[in-house]
Amino acid sequence: MMLRLIAGATILLALAGHVAAQETPSSAQGRLRVRDLGVKIGVYQPGPLNAITDVAGVRVGQVTLVEADDVRTGVTAILPHDGNMLQDRVAAAVHAYNAFGKLVGATQVNELGELETPVLLTNTLSVWDAARALAEWMLGLPGNQDVRSVNPVVGETNDGWLSDIRGMHVKAAHVIRALDSARGGPVWRELHGLTSEPQASAGRHGSCMIVVATDAPLDSRQLGRLAKRAVLGMARAGSSGSNGSSDYAIAFSTTSRSSPQRFTAGTPSLSRLSEEELSPLFEAAIEATEEAIDNSILRATTVHGRDGHVVPAIPIDRVREVMKKYGR
Amino acid sequence: MMLRLIAGATILLALAGHVAAQETPSSAQGRLRVRDLGVKIGVYQPGPLNAITDVAGVRVGQVTLVEADDVRTGVTAILPHDGNMLQDRVAAAVHAYNAFGKLVGATQVNELGELETPVLLTNTLSVWDAARALAEWMLGLPGNQDVRSVNPVVGETNDGWLSDIRGMHVKAAHVIRALDSARGGPVWRELHGLTSEPQASAGRHGSCMIVVATDAPLDSRQLGRLAKRAVLGMARAGSSGSNGSSDYAIAFSTTSRSSPQRFTAGTPSLSRLSEEELSPLFEAAIEATEEAIDNSILRATTVHGRDGHVVPAIPIDRVREVMKKYGR
Amino acid sequence: MMLRLIAGATILLALAGHVAAQETPSSAQGRLRVRDLGVKIGVYQPGPLNAITDVAGVRVGQVTLVEADDVRTGVTAILPHDGNMLQDRVAAAVHAYNAFGKLVGATQVNELGELETPVLLTNTLSVWDAARALAEWMLGLPGNQDVRSVNPVVGETNDGWLSDIRGMHVKAAHVIRALDSARGGPVWRELHGLTSEPQASAGRHGSCMIVVATDAPLDSRQLGRLAKRAVLGMARAGSSGSNGSSDYAIAFSTTSRSSPQRFTAGTPSLSRLSEEELSPLFEAAIEATEEAIDNSILRATTVHGRDGHVVPAIPIDRVREVMKKYGR
Amino acid sequence: MMLRLIAGATILLALAGHVAAQETPSSAQGRLRVRDLGVKIGVYQPGPLNAITDVAGVRVGQVTLVEADDVRTGVTAILPHDGNMLQDRVAAAVHAYNAFGKLVGATQVNELGELETPVLLTNTLSVWDAARALAEWMLGLPGNQDVRSVNPVVGETNDGWLSDIRGMHVKAAHVIRALDSARGGPVWRELHGLTSEPQASAGRHGSCMIVVATDAPLDSRQLGRLAKRAVLGMARAGSSGSNGSSDYAIAFSTTSRSSPQRFTAGTPSLSRLSEEELSPLFEAAIEATEEAIDNSILRATTVHGRDGHVVPAIPIDRVREVMKKYGR
Repeated sequence: MMLRLIAGATILLALAGHVAAQETPSSAQGRLRVRDLGVKIGVYQPGPLNAITDVAGVRVGQVTLVEADDVRTGVTAILPHDGNMLQDRVAAAVHAYNAFGKLVGATQVNELGELETPVLLTNTLSVWDAARALAEWMLGLPGNQDVRSVNPVVGETNDGWLSDIRGMHVKAAHVIRALDSARGGPVWRELHGLTSEPQASAGRHGSCMIVVATDAPLDSRQLGRLAKRAVLGMARAGSSGSNGSSDYAIAFSTTSRSSPQRFTAGTPSLSRLSEEELSPLFEAAIEATEEAIDNSILRATTVHGRDGHVVPAIPIDRVREVMKKYGR
Repeated sequence: MMLRLIAGATILLALAGHVAAQETPSSAQGRLRVRDLGVKIGVYQPGPLNAITDVAGVRVGQVTLVEADDVRTGVTAILPHDGNMLQDRVAAAVHAYNAFGKLVGATQVNELGELETPVLLTNTLSVWDAARALAEWMLGLPGNQDVRSVNPVVGETNDGWLSDIRGMHVKAAHVIRALDSARGGPVWRELHGLTSEPQASAGRHGSCMIVVATDAPLDSRQLGRLAKRAVLGMARAGSSGSNGSSDYAIAFSTTSRSSPQRFTAGTPSLSRLSEEELSPLFEAAIEATEEAIDNSILRATTVHGRDGHVVPAIPIDRVREVMKKYGR
Repeated sequence: MMLRLIAGATILLALAGHVAAQETPSSAQGRLRVRDLGVKIGVYQPGPLNAITDVAGVRVGQVTLVEADDVRTGVTAILPHDGNMLQDRVAAAVHAYNAFGKLVGATQVNELGELETPVLLTNTLSVWDAARALAEWMLGLPGNQDVRSVNPVVGETNDGWLSDIRGMHVKAAHVIRALDSARGGPVWRELHGLTSEPQASAGRHGSCMIVVATDAPLDSRQLGRLAKRAVLGMARAGSSGSNGSSDYAIAFSTTSRSSPQRFTAGTPSLSRLSEEELSPLFEAAIEATEEAIDNSILRATTVHGRDGHVVPAIPIDRVREVMKKYGR
Repeated sequence: MMLRLIAGATILLALAGHVAAQETPSSAQGRLRVRDLGVKIGVYQPGPLNAITDVAGVRVGQVTLVEADDVRTGVTAILPHDGNMLQDRVAAAVHAYNAFGKLVGATQVNELGELETPVLLTNTLSVWDAARALAEWMLGLPGNQDVRSVNPVVGETNDGWLSDIRGMHVKAAHVIRALDSARGGPVWRELHGLTSEPQASAGRHGSCMIVVATDAPLDSRQLGRLAKRAVLGMARAGSSGSNGSSDYAIAFSTTSRSSPQRFTAGTPSLSRLSEEELSPLFEAAIEATEEAIDNSILRATTVHGRDGHVVPAIPIDRVREVMKKYGR
């Protein structure tokens, strides 16, 4: 998770939590972020937490499943604000860079230019159960008793190398817990989204689902431009958007809100940044994405999964050596 | 469901089955199709069944739920061929005309230009359960035991005016039954997709999910052009693509197939119609869509649903009167 | 050109002027509009002029070229307002329904969500000369002396059946004259866009470039939805979007404006209709498009062109007969 | 210009020639490519020329204009093959990453999935003159005497910092000369596309128009995926796709060809790579783009332009120092 402050606008990112099992508060102790190694990615300053929760009002919840020797998965919930999102929506846009993936709800987000639910991230084969659980959670909120349509948004990456993904182990209860336990402040468990499949066996599959939060007043078209830049950050971190990768970015603005008429009265008036002001936000989104991916790689611990498969943590000492060799 | 024959190419359509409860073999007796009234839509000749199953190999299955006084829903399965679709895919494309809707799987279909599962149609709030059930059904097919990713495609329309849609009554068992019972030949229960909500209360909400099947050798780009034309047929039948409507079209070709390398060897060679040959197919797709919608309206019977809501059948006698008045 | 009034919002349309030569003030005398035949298309009321100039501030200019026996072409200019459009832009969106066509400037309109020049309509092979002339005209406006980029928008239809289109007879002077002579009020020469090529020889090629103007406060995403509906009106008027057709719609709002920072100060604040309010505008756009096309067909006079080619006017008496037969 | 060989498939790139004046055979003497500095970008091997002309049949022509003290512009022509492209088209796709630009012809390329003309690159305000000249050149080819529609493709970058861009100095004669003089083999004058505007005054505006050529048999959808990857190479070379930048990529395949029916008989049969084979091509496109941009920066010489503006060459000695510092 990354953060950048630009002239009062904040951009933050979360990556998909499909190998959430890799990191627990205990196991991640001693793991470093890229800035701990003395490396600054780009030119913008992160916020105090260097986390998506630096954007005022954004909360994150996460449930990690480590069961037996073959369940290594989880679900992450990102809530743009505290309210009822069906009644108080945030402007949003999806960029389907490499749509070899299952982003539930993508098309409606772009048609209406808004998010009407939190965003969930989970494993590839659990997106439908997660979407169903999120839909039910939304329908159950006070004031939604007459709602008969809702568009849950659920992204994914594939953790099937380590986990019994065919078992669809993420259940409704896990989703509800992730949503209900979401909070601001430091988010202890890093969110990450690099595929756990070793390169040797699977090519450079680097699936990534990126969530960009900002408090800059942007409309959906501008957020679509911003989401596109997140992909450039992936490229700088090494991604080539390989065929089997699933690479989406979704961006939302906590200050561009709208309410359907049935929930409110009056004509909405919106403020919006001028197009010329976007360039620094674009750069920040790129930098934040690159740093989020770097941190995910650095902080991930060794995970043993199904069938004896192992995804080793990156050896920090070796990283330091390479950095030294190249003068960093 | 409609059919057209053009120079050896067949185009067929299915509409979403969200008010499937309206029609049962018994209740629909006596209900007419538009051609029974002496009206020919357009210039092309339908096939022998005037049904999507006129395209060789295409099968349709349907489960209708009529329970208590408030469950009026169902699920329809459209299978492009008899085989394992993960291993033997059909070229396909989605046109998201009015993406105020929940078409699960849409983005991957367009990225890869293919369908790797059958297509399901159900109610708005059952798409995730249906997608999950379809995914499990696919994973369980012989030869798919090592598959760890699949892209189920599920469209929807909203039957919440008549049915307790919030109850999510379409279960996995219903989906499996629709898939397993699918067959060719005459399809007794019409598929239809006009919203059941009366115009007076809800405006002209005419959600529509259109499935176009053809045996013409078209690639995914060409199928995208074809899917776009289906929307023109909606317009001729009266749709204005109102804000709350959900209007998607998906087109596939049973003769443009591809197999992932892991399932086969060699480089695929494809034949494809020349672009100049597409115009008659475009017209046929428009005509078939219009006729499918007309038939859905004509054949639907009166349905009583939740909270005393009623969607009356169209009065055929009055239709005949109007037609007579206008010289038809 | 058509007009509809909906709750204070006005939608108007222009079609491409490629067979502008068909109609002159004199020759069109006696030609009727569809309402003169007693037919009302749809349910909404047109404005006082039933012309795109009913939208306050919109002006139209047109130059028709009828030279020798083989020049039958022209250029139409549609100006959203009186000001310098580079400094005072209108929200806009392009829908490329059937992009077998040469709409210059389309991609930038959608990226930035705005028009920064008037819109021109001309013949297929004159779009580049027209775009160049429009660019020069813009660069020459007071206040633009330092401008080094501009995005002229020029649509087209193909009048090559009647006219020596390869001769590229529309010159910069014609474009400038169309721009400079543009005015509001009744626009005497109808704009029309149906291909002049007879169906017998060329299939149902019905190229259409539709311009939708509204004074409703819509942002570019909403205008994109509106532009899509114009295509439904084409369908109702008979179009099938044949392969060789070029079918684009562009919609703009005269009340959603923005200025680049270099020309102004402060953060723009925008009002925008709620999504639920769009449905009547969608219907109006459909109806207006259908009526505009019908009028174009009705009002066009017989034109003799190159190589003895003739496009006959539609026989009004025969139209009346058919209408009578069908009870209208 | 770059080249990569992958399993018999070749990917090559050209960047826009808008500061072509920077490099002449004489002035560029002594200027280095990145490999001359001992740096290898990525893992794939370039072809013998490390130029887009390594793809068999591709030819490049270029005309550079250096006149007085304020004309610094030019035009580049990239010809996919020797034949009549209207009759023998190559599969192609455009990716409009940042469509703040004037890519003439973009929408039709994606609708039909093919290029029917060579590709031109020139300055922002000369695209329409260039498109017109290219259209006339095509209409004049043997066999095209009855053609009444053609879709020239012309990309651009903005050289207005150095050059009197408002003067529109690229004339039809220059375009024709670039087309007629195109040849294979070593292409002496590098093509490049980085904006000449210094960062200090203008932010990081790095407009880029990328042309990707390959002899791999890819259809237009696959070429669209390939074009998207080129943008990742831009990111690695430092681009952030700033607001004012114009970033498009166009990819074509010299071995995926089609002919309109009027020019040929029979149904085309196409071979096409399997989707799983695309990943190495994606990586190659990224690497080639990055290297092409690096080379453009390295080989550009100091240029003095209008109003005393200067774009200095990158100091190679300083580059060596930085490289040494970072262990390269």
